[in-house]
Amino acid sequence: MLTDPDVAASYARDQTFLEPGKPLCAVAAQTRDDVVATMRWATEHRVPVVPRGAGTGLAGGATAVEGCVMLSLARMTEIRELSPADEIAVVEPGVITADLDRAARAHGLMYAPDPSSYEISTIGGNLATNAGGLRCVKYGVTRDSTLGLEVVLADGRLLTTGRRTMKGVTGYDLTGLFVGSEGTLGVITSATLRLRRAPAAPPVTVAAEFPSQRAAGDAVAAIVAAGCRPSLLELMDRNTLKAIDDWKNIGLDAGVQAMLIAQSEGELPGSADAMARLCEANGASFVAMSSSPEEADELIGLRRLAYTAKERLGACLVEDVCVPRSVLPDMITIIEETAARHDTLICTVAHAGDGNLHPVFIFDRGLSEPPANVWAAADEVFRAALRLGGTLTGEHGVGLLKRRWLGLESGPVVSEVQQKIKQVFDPLGILNPGKAI
Amino acid sequence: MLTDPDVAASYARDQTFLEPGKPLCAVAAQTRDDVVATMRWATEHRVPVVPRGAGTGLAGGATAVEGCVMLSLARMTEIRELSPADEIAVVEPGVITADLDRAARAHGLMYAPDPSSYEISTIGGNLATNAGGLRCVKYGVTRDSTLGLEVVLADGRLLTTGRRTMKGVTGYDLTGLFVGSEGTLGVITSATLRLRRAPAAPPVTVAAEFPSQRAAGDAVAAIVAAGCRPSLLELMDRNTLKAIDDWKNIGLDAGVQAMLIAQSEGELPGSADAMARLCEANGASFVAMSSSPEEADELIGLRRLAYTAKERLGACLVEDVCVPRSVLPDMITIIEETAARHDTLICTVAHAGDGNLHPVFIFDRGLSEPPANVWAAADEVFRAALRLGGTLTGEHGVGLLKRRWLGLESGPVVSEVQQKIKQVFDPLGILNPGKAI
Ligand SMILES: Cc1cc2nc3c(=O)[nH]c(=O)nc-3n(C[C@H](O)[C@H](O)[C@H](O)COP(=O)(O)OP(=O)(O)OC[C@H]3O[C@@H](n4cnc5c(N)ncnc54)[C@H](O)[C@@H]3O)c2cc1C
Ligand SMILES: Cc1cc2nc3c(=O)[nH]c(=O)nc-3n(C[C@H](O)[C@H](O)[C@H](O)COP(=O)(O)OP(=O)(O)OC[C@H]3O[C@@H](n4cnc5c(N)ncnc54)[C@H](O)[C@@H]3O)c2cc1C
Repeated sequence: MLTDPDVAASYARDQTFLEPGKPLCAVAAQTRDDVVATMRWATEHRVPVVPRGAGTGLAGGATAVEGCVMLSLARMTEIRELSPADEIAVVEPGVITADLDRAARAHGLMYAPDPSSYEISTIGGNLATNAGGLRCVKYGVTRDSTLGLEVVLADGRLLTTGRRTMKGVTGYDLTGLFVGSEGTLGVITSATLRLRRAPAAPPVTVAAEFPSQRAAGDAVAAIVAAGCRPSLLELMDRNTLKAIDDWKNIGLDAGVQAMLIAQSEGELPGSADAMARLCEANGASFVAMSSSPEEADELIGLRRLAYTAKERLGACLVEDVCVPRSVLPDMITIIEETAARHDTLICTVAHAGDGNLHPVFIFDRGLSEPPANVWAAADEVFRAALRLGGTLTGEHGVGLLKRRWLGLESGPVVSEVQQKIKQVFDPLGILNPGKAI
Repeated sequence: MLTDPDVAASYARDQTFLEPGKPLCAVAAQTRDDVVATMRWATEHRVPVVPRGAGTGLAGGATAVEGCVMLSLARMTEIRELSPADEIAVVEPGVITADLDRAARAHGLMYAPDPSSYEISTIGGNLATNAGGLRCVKYGVTRDSTLGLEVVLADGRLLTTGRRTMKGVTGYDLTGLFVGSEGTLGVITSATLRLRRAPAAPPVTVAAEFPSQRAAGDAVAAIVAAGCRPSLLELMDRNTLKAIDDWKNIGLDAGVQAMLIAQSEGELPGSADAMARLCEANGASFVAMSSSPEEADELIGLRRLAYTAKERLGACLVEDVCVPRSVLPDMITIIEETAARHDTLICTVAHAGDGNLHPVFIFDRGLSEPPANVWAAADEVFRAALRLGGTLTGEHGVGLLKRRWLGLESGPVVSEVQQKIKQVFDPLGILNPGKAI
C-alpha cells in the first residue's frame, strides 16, 4: 500500500489529458489475495476503487476518482501456464502483452491481439478494454482470444468464468461481459487465453503512398471488397507521417498525403500482388512489396510510433471511431473537412482493414482541456461516424472521455439494462464509478 | 395464434425425448410487432413464453412448459440486407441457416457457422444456443459471427445491441450475452451477422479409418499439436458408422473402429498431406485424400446424417461434452469403458478438432425416459469431462436436459450472478422458465 500522496498520484493518470481526482492511496497488488483484501476493505468502508494496468489507456478508464484506491495489477506478472498441446495460456493480469506473445513464439505459437502499445500495455488492461491492434483484421480482438477469467468482485468474492476448452455454452457468457467492461464490474486476476499458430513463413508486406487520403481510403475499400484477406492493413495520413518524419527523419516526399501498409500471410496465393495492384488502380503514386522481415518490422515499427510522434506536437484528444468498411473513404473525407472547418490539426491513423480510425486532435499543451474548436470538431466526427452506421469506440473504450457522446449511440433501454447489470456486480457502485456506461 | 390443442402441441417439443408440458397456445409470429404484442400480453397476464425456432434443439430448450405460449419465429424468414462490400447480413430469426449460407455464396461469401442441422435449423435457434458446427474449428461458433441483435424483452420493449462494424466496445457486450442464452433473456427478432469470404478453391479432404477409437483420438491430438489448422476435423466411431451403414449401405469394413474426416482449405501448404501422414503414424488402416468437391460433399453428407441414423436405433440421449484437445484420446477411452461397464449402446461423433464430443446414448423407444443404466453412464461421462478440464456442453446448450449437472460445473457465485442477470431482463420470470441456468 502506497500512501505517500506523490507516489499515489503517480498512479492516477492514463494517457489522456483528463485531470484525475486525488487518490486516497495506491495498492500495488502482488497476489490475488491482495486484491481480495483490497476489495473487502473497500466494500466495508464504501471507498471507490479504480483498477489499473499500465496506464496506457486512451479513454480515461484508469483516471483516479477523488478519494479512490488506485489498485494496480502491474506487479502480477506471472505466466502460470503455457500449453502448446492445447494452444492456451493462463496468465496474471500484469503480464505485458508482448511478453506473452514472445513466450508463445518460443513454442511456434503467438498471442494474436497486438495493440500498438503491446510493449507497454498489460493483458488485464487489454481485457478490460477489449483491445484491438494491428493483427485484429485477421485474428480478431482480445475477446476473440479469451476463454475464461478469474475475477474478484466488488465485495471480494471470487468469480470464475468460462473454460479451458475451445467451445462451451454452459450458462450466460460472463467472460465476454467482463471483457471490455473497463474495470466497472470486477477486477480481473487471471485469464485463460487462446494462443494461435504463428505463421510459418514471414508475411509479404505492401507499402503504398497516395496523393490523397481519400484515394488511400478507396484502396482499402477495394481491398476489402475484393476479398484479399490481409493480416494487417494500416493507414497513416500526411500529418501523422510528418510528425514521424520530424522526429525520425524518414524522408517523406512532398506529395504524399497518405500511406497504406498491408500484409498477407500467404493463405490466399496472390493476395499481396492483388493488394498492390488495387493500390495502383486507386491512384497510389508509389507501391513497394517486400518479404524481408527486417523491412516489415521497420515499417510497422514506424506505425507503432505514430502516437508517440503526435504527442511531441502537443496535447492529444484521441478518437477511435469505427465505421463499416465500405464508407471508410467517406469518413476520411469528413475528418479532413472537419479539420479545415474548425481550423484544427488532426492526425489520423487507422486500423483501416477494420474500418477503425484514430483521428487525433492536437491542442496546446498549456491548456488543461481541449479548446472549444477541438471539442466542436471532435463532436462532428463522432456524429458523422454514427450517421455512417459506425460506433464511438472501436477498441479504446468509453472511459471518461466519451461519456458525453454515449447517449447518441446507446438508447435509453440499453442504458437502463447496462446500469442494472452494473448493479448486479457492484451494488454499492464502488468499482471505477462514472466510467464506461 | 394457434389455439387448437393438437396444433399447439405440435410446437411443444424439440428433438429430445423430454415430455413437454401442455401449451396454452402457439403463436406463429410473422413480424416483430407480433412478438411485441405477444410479450406485452404475456407480461400483463404473467404467462410463460417459450421461444422456438425449428425445434431441432438437442437439450430441451424449446420444450413447452405447462400453460405456456409457444412463440415460433419460424415464419420470420426475410434476409433484410446482404452487403458484400461490408461482408454483413441482416436477417430475421426464422431464416434457415443453410439458406443464408447459399445467399452469401452468390456473392463469393459464406455464413460460416454450420451445425449438422443447418438445412433445418434457424438462425434464431443458432443464436440462442450459440451453435457450433463442422467449420467451427476454423471459423468459430455462432457468437464469432454475430455483430448485433434486435431483441424483444419480456415486457415487450425493444433492445438493440451491438453494431454493423467489425469492432466496437461501447458499453457492455450485450450481444454476446444474448447469444447462447437459450431464449431466457429475450426474443431475438433480427440479427446483424458477419459473412466471410468463401474459400477460392475446393478444400482437400482426408478420410482415414482406424482400428481403434483411441488411435483416431491420438491422430486428432497430433494434428492439433502439429499446427495443421484443418478447416474441418470430424470423428465417427464404429457404432455411428454401423448405424449409417445399416441405413445407407456404405460398405463398412469389419475392422474399422473409427473414421476421421479432415479438410484443409490450403492456407497452410502441405497441411492435408501432413494430416494424412499423422493419421498413418497413429495407426490408420486406410487413408485417402481427394480434392474432388463431389467426394467431399458425399463424405460430409454422411457425417451430417449421423444423428438421424442413430435415431433409427432407438430413443437418444445426446451429450455434448467438450474437453481440451490434448485429452481427447482419454475422453474417448472413458466413453468406451463407460459404455461397457453400464452395458449401454453409445454412438459417438465428435467435432474432434474442437475437442467437442457427442456420445449418444441409445435406449428403448418405448420408455418415456432413459433407464437407470443410461442415466448412470451419462452421469459418469459428464463427470469425467469436467475432471479433464472440460465442459458439460460445447454447443447444444443446457436446456432442461443438463440442468441436473449444472452445479458440477458452475459454482454458487456463478449461479447467483446468472440468476441476477436473468432478473434484470425478465423480472417476472416468464421467459422460458427453468431452462439454461
Ligand atoms: C502508443 C499507444 C498505442 C496504443 N495502441 C492501441 C491499439 O492499437 N489498440 C488498442 O486497443 N489500444 C491501444 N492503445 C490504448 C491502450 O494501450 C489499451 O487500451 C490497453 O488495453 C490499456 O492497457 P493498460 O494495461 O495500460 O490499462 P490501463 O490504461 O491501466 O487501464 C485501462 C482500463 O482497464 C481497466 N483495468 C486495467 N487492468 C484491469 C484489471 N486487471 N481488471 C479490471 N480492470 C482493469 C482500468 O480500470 C481501465 O478502465 C494505445 C495506447 C498507446 C499509449
Ligand atoms: C441432426 C441434427 C444435427 C445437429 N447438429 C448440430 C451441430 O453440429 N451443432 C450444434 O450446435 N447443434 C446441432 N444440433 C442442435 C440444433 O440444431 C441446434 O441447437 C440449433 O441451433 C437449434 O436451432 P432451432 O431453430 O431448431 O432452435 P430450437 O430448437 O427451436 O430452439 C433452441 C433454443 O433456442 C431458443 N430460441 C429459438 N429461437 C429463438 C429466438 N428467435 N429468440 C430467442 N430464443 C430462441 C429456444 O427457446 C431454445 O431454447 C443438431 C440437431 C440435429 C437434429
